[in-house]
Formats: sequence, structure tokens, C-alpha cells
Amino acid sequence: MAQLNESPIRIGLLGAGTVGSQTARLLVEQKDELEARIGRPIELVGVACLNPDEVDFPWIDKSLLTSDTMKVATNADIVIELIGGTTVARTFVLAALNAGASVVTANKALLAKYGPEIYKAAEANGVDIYFEAAVGGAIPIVRPLRESLVGDRITSMLGIVNGTTNYILDEMTTKGLDFDVALKDAQAKGYAEADPTGDIEGYDAANKAAIMATLAFHTNVSIDDVTVEGITKITADDIAAATAEHKVVKLLAVVENGEAGVSARVYPALIDENHPLASVHGSFNAVFVKAEAADDLMFYGRGAGGAPTASAVVGDVVTEARHIASGCTGPSIPMYKNLPHAPINASKAAFAVRFLIHDKPGVLAAIAREFADHGVSINGVNQDLKPTLNDPGYDGEIQQLRIVTHLTDEETLHKTVSAVCKLDFVTGEPSILRVLD
Amino acid sequence: MAQLNESPIRIGLLGAGTVGSQTARLLVEQKDELEARIGRPIELVGVACLNPDEVDFPWIDKSLLTSDTMKVATNADIVIELIGGTTVARTFVLAALNAGASVVTANKALLAKYGPEIYKAAEANGVDIYFEAAVGGAIPIVRPLRESLVGDRITSMLGIVNGTTNYILDEMTTKGLDFDVALKDAQAKGYAEADPTGDIEGYDAANKAAIMATLAFHTNVSIDDVTVEGITKITADDIAAATAEHKVVKLLAVVENGEAGVSARVYPALIDENHPLASVHGSFNAVFVKAEAADDLMFYGRGAGGAPTASAVVGDVVTEARHIASGCTGPSIPMYKNLPHAPINASKAAFAVRFLIHDKPGVLAAIAREFADHGVSINGVNQDLKPTLNDPGYDGEIQQLRIVTHLTDEETLHKTVSAVCKLDFVTGEPSILRVLD
Repeated sequence: MAQLNESPIRIGLLGAGTVGSQTARLLVEQKDELEARIGRPIELVGVACLNPDEVDFPWIDKSLLTSDTMKVATNADIVIELIGGTTVARTFVLAALNAGASVVTANKALLAKYGPEIYKAAEANGVDIYFEAAVGGAIPIVRPLRESLVGDRITSMLGIVNGTTNYILDEMTTKGLDFDVALKDAQAKGYAEADPTGDIEGYDAANKAAIMATLAFHTNVSIDDVTVEGITKITADDIAAATAEHKVVKLLAVVENGEAGVSARVYPALIDENHPLASVHGSFNAVFVKAEAADDLMFYGRGAGGAPTASAVVGDVVTEARHIASGCTGPSIPMYKNLPHAPINASKAAFAVRFLIHDKPGVLAAIAREFADHGVSINGVNQDLKPTLNDPGYDGEIQQLRIVTHLTDEETLHKTVSAVCKLDFVTGEPSILRVLD
Repeated sequence: MAQLNESPIRIGLLGAGTVGSQTARLLVEQKDELEARIGRPIELVGVACLNPDEVDFPWIDKSLLTSDTMKVATNADIVIELIGGTTVARTFVLAALNAGASVVTANKALLAKYGPEIYKAAEANGVDIYFEAAVGGAIPIVRPLRESLVGDRITSMLGIVNGTTNYILDEMTTKGLDFDVALKDAQAKGYAEADPTGDIEGYDAANKAAIMATLAFHTNVSIDDVTVEGITKITADDIAAATAEHKVVKLLAVVENGEAGVSARVYPALIDENHPLASVHGSFNAVFVKAEAADDLMFYGRGAGGAPTASAVVGDVVTEARHIASGCTGPSIPMYKNLPHAPINASKAAFAVRFLIHDKPGVLAAIAREFADHGVSINGVNQDLKPTLNDPGYDGEIQQLRIVTHLTDEETLHKTVSAVCKLDFVTGEPSILRVLD
């Protein structure tokens, strides 16, 4: 073990909220352990926050608190950015890198939008950028992608990377709740924010999808490249139909590297109840990876929360401190491939489409005819599902007709559904969900 | 990106079997990709094997094949050891390290027995030892333990780390097979070796438990410190009883850091069907980690097989090649803690004990009395399970009585069971399984 009588590695913390305060706790309470693992002392030299007077944690020395964020960002060996967002966080992260500090961040939105700029700034300054906590919270997934799987060829990843939506879908499944009720319940319990838009519309998951795709495929994928669909349209009937078919509905971040190029998408999908992702419950996260040689892998754990996220942040801090102690840097983020982005219709999927119909003889024949005319092959039909009365547009005489297709492209599917919806016995809004094989 | 006109990093491969040949394939077929990720060329400079004339893979240049293993071990920048075992492998690994090469190995038995000697030799020579493939095959678990979770405090790990036994237990569960039948089936399908002892007696899992404990607790735990119990005594009745209680039987490697010290054990245990480990089927592996800040994590994937294991090996090779390209080394294996090893009775568990009895009035009262006299608290009793006729010792008149205890220590439990077995209405061998909460 290295001697500990060297000068300490100086750590600046930007943000003292839920994750920031827990990060400070681990750094302070485990100081001796961390030093033994690093081989050199570490020292928390500053904690920047908006209102220093209101921050009161027994493990944070009050003299470290300041509202001068730029000062902390530019006076440390390692800067931990836990401010969030894409405005001031970008300014401070770039300032820290340009001042010669390595940066550890949990900021998925920042990396999904300004990743290349930040990665280049780190490389230009000969420092590192680590962001394990930006995807999957406490789950080690960024490091396996950057290092463990670097000798393999990742073909696709499926992630449950938003705990709020997974909690809501889980409650809808186990308790038969409607979306609105489950959302209110999640808000009351603190699993959803007062403004839940970023979670339920899939934007949070989309940021993570962009980062996952960039790391997996060595090609820049930004938030603007991700197509996003949230869970607000999922009804209790969708869930009931899934349950009847031994499937569950999950909001997935899906990144793929196919013949037509890379794609990153967020959408709710039906997955078989035996799939490892199906048993990811409540606010847990998981990322399922398919690689050419390694085959299937899955990483599971807490996707959010102060202490779990802080565990990932401090893991990165220790890694970087070891680099500094040994005078080297970690791997850069290689984006050498510049792969094309697949057009939206390049990826085919099976779809489950639920129509609301006034049932009469010939209905199925007419609908099946539209599918055939559009070249969409039908895998299964289910007319046994009774709609719940509280779903919009139901009048008690209406029935559900559910069709599962074979693989088809999205444009064709939507044209087919539009055509079916013009038939006079079809009413209300159809529900369209992808089905994972 | 670094210029690629530097001298190549020279890679020597020891072993050209299932994993070795796949490792060579990835190194050769993905050469350009790997070089882009490393920033410097790599070159396979030698492949040592027992019978070079019998090795014939299109991607291995025949001029690289040699039976002079020592020459390959001592003439490379990175030596990949895939020979296995604890005799010649030790010699070659130490020779490689002493010759200044970093070593990548999948050899769990070697590290579980001679870990400290090898880690010290690496440190003394200023080189690295990487062994992602030694635990959980393709699953990135070693790197997360060495790096991602290094800022946290791991309290316990539960691993399904032997695919052969998991396959056998899975077949017993889904098909109601007896152990012997399931083993023969596994042998026929290539999931178990002709001599299955190392797998079914738990020794393979024990090697992995030793490595897991050493990494998690920063204290040396060798194979000699691991208590081992295999799955050969598990009967179809044990499985049926587990199923009736919504549990599954899994062979677990369990490492814990408790008040009394560290422990590493391998045993079959009952776990709830909702536990994430319960859905690890067939020959898949998974490691479940409990950490103070990160909370629950699970890592899942292929625990064996040529290509999956090669993926982990090549990931290590790329990591080490990056170190060499940037002139530094990775983290050493810190064993600074020297924690005490917990005495075997320090760890308490709940147990499910199945007795075979000639049923008559007063049987349960007499058995319950023995448990009470020994201070073992009973959590539940089940007399409804009919034994299968093909289990040894059953005469058709015998019934099963199954008792699940609250937490108790192993010594007390065994004394209690011995006392019960002396009661005149108890017959045959009792079955004892731990129950995980």
C-alpha cells in the first residue's frame, strides 16, 4: 500500500441536495476507508449550494459551504457536479475541466445534450469525466459499458431506467389502477414529482437512452436523436390485456445497432412475464444488454435515491482519485464510429393494437382485410377482453378487439390502424403497444 | 484519438480450448475495433497449447502455435492464462508477472488458492492482474467490485455462480426430476462434465465465493476458509416442498461481513420465488449484492461458455492494453483490512428441516418439544406433503413433516435435529436447508 503522507486530493462538491448531502456523508464518514483504497488522502474542500445558511448536515463542516459555485468548481482536483440541468451545470462543468479538474457527474440531461463538448473538453485538458450515476443510479452500468464490454460488440440494450414510471406501471398491474390514480398515489408517496412530466412522458429515460447508445455503439447519440413515447396513454385495460397474455407493460429505453444504423427510442412495451426485466418491480431499475460474445446480461438495482446515487458518485471519485494518485487518466469516451442513425422505419416490431368496436358479424373479417391489404401479418386475435367502464369512450355496448401482429414497420402499422379506424363500427382511440419477443 | 503508428502491444495466449479459441477469435476478428478503442495496435504473438498439431481454427495463424508455454508466458506485454488448475498455471502466471507482463486470467481455483501470492507478485512487478472471467463468466462483477462499489460498504453477496448446478436444480423444479436423473440429463446435454464432482459438490462455487469475499471485504479469504455443501442430497421431495411454499432451491455462494467477522459459504438454500435470484434459470449465473449506500444490486448473465467467457477476457485485455498505452497500472487488490473470520456458529439462519416419520398421535408435540428444549423457535409446520415413492427409505407408510425455524445457529440446529432423529417414530435421513429471508 502507498504511503498516506502525501498531499490530499482535493474534492469540490457542487450541490448539497438529496444526492449531494449523501455524497458528502460517504466522503466524510468513510474517509479512512477511502484513503486506504486510494492510497492517498482525500479532502472535501468546498460545497457549493444556493443557500448555505439553510444547509445543515452534521457531517458537512459549515465553513465549507459557499454560494460561490465557480470558486469551488475551479479550485479542486475532482469536481462533483450534482446541480442538474443543462444551463449553469454546463458552465461549471466546462470551467472545472478547463481548470484542470476531473469531473464526476450524475447529470444525464447535460451529457445527453452536450456530451461531445464535455468529453472533448476533458480530453483536451488531460482529465477525466465519470458519470456512473447518470444512468441507472447505483447500478454499475456505465463502467461495464466503458470497460468490461469493450472487447465485445453490443447489439442492443433494453433499460428500465426510470423508477417513477416503473412504480406507476407496477401499481397499475398489481392493483388494477388507472394511470391517473396510480400517478396521484405515486406523487403522494414521493415516487413522482409534483410536475411529473419529465418522467411520465419519457424524457428522463430518453436522456439515459442517448448516453447508453453513445457508450454502447461508440457513436454520438444525443437527446435530439431519441424518439420518445411516455406512459400517459396506458390504460387499465392495456394492463389487463397484458396480464391475460402473461405479459407486463414496461417503459423501456431501447438502443439498437442494426444494419440500417443506430437507434435510440423510449416507449412502453409488452414483455413476456418470464423475461428477466419483467421481475423488475417498484422503483428499481435494470438494464438488459445483448452482446455478440457475452450474450445476455442484466444489471439491476436502485435507479435513484440519495444514498444509492451517492454510492455510484463516490465510486467514480475513488476511481478518479486512484488515477490522480498514479498520475494517469481513465479511458476517454470513444466516438470514432460515426454510425448512421437508422431511419424510423428501419426497425421492425410486433405490435399489439387494441380497437374499441361495436361488435357485429363481419367485424373481424373487415379488420383482418385491412391488415392483409397493408401487408401486415396477424399473429393473434383476442376478443374476450371486456373493457372497464371508466375508460374514456366506452358506452357499455363497446367491446375490445385486440390484434397482435408479426414484425412490421411502424409507418405501415400506423397506416393500417388509421384505415381500420375509418371503418364505421370502430370507435374511440386505438391503443398501440410494441411487443418484445 | 491516439495515433496508431506505435509499436503493437504484444499478447500471449496460454491455452487454446473452448475459451482460448474464442478469445483468439475476438482478438483477431475485432482487431481494428479493439485498436480504435485502445488507441494503439495489439498483436497476438503466441498461442501455447499441449498439442499444436491438433489445434485448427481458421482465425489462429498456425505459426503462432507452440507447446513451449513458458516462452509465450515470458515474451508478451499481456499474458492470458486459460490453462486452469493450480499447478502449472501458477508457475506460468508467476513467470509472466515476474517477466513484467500483466496477466488476464479466468482461473478461479488459482486465485482462490494462491491469490495473495499472485496479487503481490503483480504489485511487486508494477503490472496488473485482471480476472473478470473468474467469477460469473461474462458477467461484469469483478470490475464493479474493484471499482464501482469501492466508495461503498458491501455487507453481503449471494451468488448463483455455478451454471451446472443451477441447470440441474431448474430441471428438478420444472420437470419434477430426481437429482440422479437430472444430473444424467445435464451430462447428456453437455451442461455437466463426465466427472461432475467439482460442480455438484460446490467446490467450483466455493472458489468463486473466496474471490468474491476477498474483493468485497478487502481481506484475504481463501478456498480453505469456505465451508461447502453441494446439491447431491437434494431430493425431488425437497423441491416439491419448496414449490408448495412458493420458494425455489438454489445453490448459493454466500459471503457476509458481520459483527463476528467475514464468512464465505456455499450451500443450497430456499429463496422466495419473488427474489430476483429466483428467476435465474438454466445455466445462467447471477450475483446479488447488498451494500450500505447502493442497497440491492444484481448482476446477471452467462456464467460459462466459450464466447461469453472470452468476452470478459478480452474486456480485461483491452483495459490492460489501455493502461499500457497510457503508461499506468490499474487498481491493486487491497487486502488491508485483515478482518477476523467469523466462527461457523456466528451466522444465524432460518432452516427448513424435513423429517420422515411414522405418523401417530403426539408426533408433532414430541418434535416441537425437542425444538423448544433446544431453544429453537418454530416458524411453521407442514405435514401435508406426500413423499414420492422413489425417494430412499420410504415404505409407503411414511409421511413427511417439515418444520421451518426462526433464526438459529447451525450447531444448535444440528443438535436439535439429532435429538429428534432419536425419537422412535422418526426414520430415514432428515433434509436440512437454509431459508433466506
